Amino acid sequence: MTKTFDIVFALWPRCAQLDFLGAYEVFAHLPGANLRLASEHGGDLTGALGLPLRDVEKLSDIERCDLLFVGGTADMSAATTPGMLQQLRRLGEDARYVTSICTGSLILGQAGLLRGRRSATHWAFLDQLAQYGAIPDPARTVRDGKFWSGGGVTACVDFALELMADIEDPTYAQMIQLYIEYNPAPPFGSGHPSTAPAEVVEALRARFGEKLGKIGGVVPTTALT
Amino acid sequence: MTKTFDIVFALWPRCAQLDFLGAYEVFAHLPGANLRLASEHGGDLTGALGLPLRDVEKLSDIERCDLLFVGGTADMSAATTPGMLQQLRRLGEDARYVTSICTGSLILGQAGLLRGRRSATHWAFLDQLAQYGAIPDPARTVRDGKFWSGGGVTACVDFALELMADIEDPTYAQMIQLYIEYNPAPPFGSGHPSTAPAEVVEALRARFGEKLGKIGGVVPTTALT
Repeated sequence: MTKTFDIVFALWPRCAQLDFLGAYEVFAHLPGANLRLASEHGGDLTGALGLPLRDVEKLSDIERCDLLFVGGTADMSAATTPGMLQQLRRLGEDARYVTSICTGSLILGQAGLLRGRRSATHWAFLDQLAQYGAIPDPARTVRDGKFWSGGGVTACVDFALELMADIEDPTYAQMIQLYIEYNPAPPFGSGHPSTAPAEVVEALRARFGEKLGKIGGVVPTTALT
Repeated sequence: MTKTFDIVFALWPRCAQLDFLGAYEVFAHLPGANLRLASEHGGDLTGALGLPLRDVEKLSDIERCDLLFVGGTADMSAATTPGMLQQLRRLGEDARYVTSICTGSLILGQAGLLRGRRSATHWAFLDQLAQYGAIPDPARTVRDGKFWSGGGVTACVDFALELMADIEDPTYAQMIQLYIEYNPAPPFGSGHPSTAPAEVVEALRARFGEKLGKIGGVVPTTALT
């Protein structure tokens, strides 16, 4: 109960916001949780949708952590600098849990941490995992040893509750689910290509395909190790 | 497409984080969205779970908005100062949509905006709405005229997608649901007292009841207007 459980959220300019903030909300209730926001350079940071953060730590100042969390991004360049990848490798090798949501799995892949590991990611990027030696898994949440991952953006809440059950216990995880009233009732069934109307999938590709590098297309592999 | 749609997220020290950040993630994709974080005093702000925000605007500097959003809090004192309530009334009276999640509905109630209106809130506080002349509605999302509200914390995503369908159109809302892969798969069915095991409800009350002022208990009604 009183032991500190250090959780590092690895961030960078234009990082996806809800990827980490949904998990943050759950993990904050973990007994002993010490939540740390950290980036390569520290200081002020602005998320992908404009969220203005301050007092972000430097990853290099963090000696170790119990859980490393890597969220996603539509701009891999800031997330995969040599300095970022080195810090992720360093913290990840020693952590008890190494976790990712959405395209964060591709970042862990570029850091060389997912070779031979099953991993989830955003549906549009699943095939991209193989180039890093990872094994793409279409499940919403995936566990392979100490590596836990989730699908796109909002999978972070499902993932964090499962992880909380593992770290603490299932009753406690259910308490937190009740506390945050996670009783989802999506107004539409369009949360995944397997259930969305075909015209919705096509409309999304037409409108946002370019923004995402191409949905289901090529993610830059600069700094591939 | 090019018309600006101004959305003001009303914040205060120790405001609940995911309440507004889940809605923020959805609304950011609304065509023309201009997202503004604003508090009574502006500047730096720290959320309930420690999220360090900067560059928050002053509510009094905002002339008007299309949508006013009020999230919840476990500390009503900072959310219901006379200055806060005055700003919420001023912006709310002119807005096209006045919205709340979780105990944000109680804040709107204290501001005098919900008299005779149906409203949702976190399950533990539903009965509290009546003291402000509002009509408690146990639904996850509730619409009454220009007043839209949702249940606890994570209802924000359901609520925001429904609102997006109303503001823009249902196909567009489904595109955004697909984009953020909102295909929830909670690991447990404990998101609401009506579905959670009785021992989980009891354990939550025992552990967090005091923290929340008392779950289902009394919310301070200082500054009640």
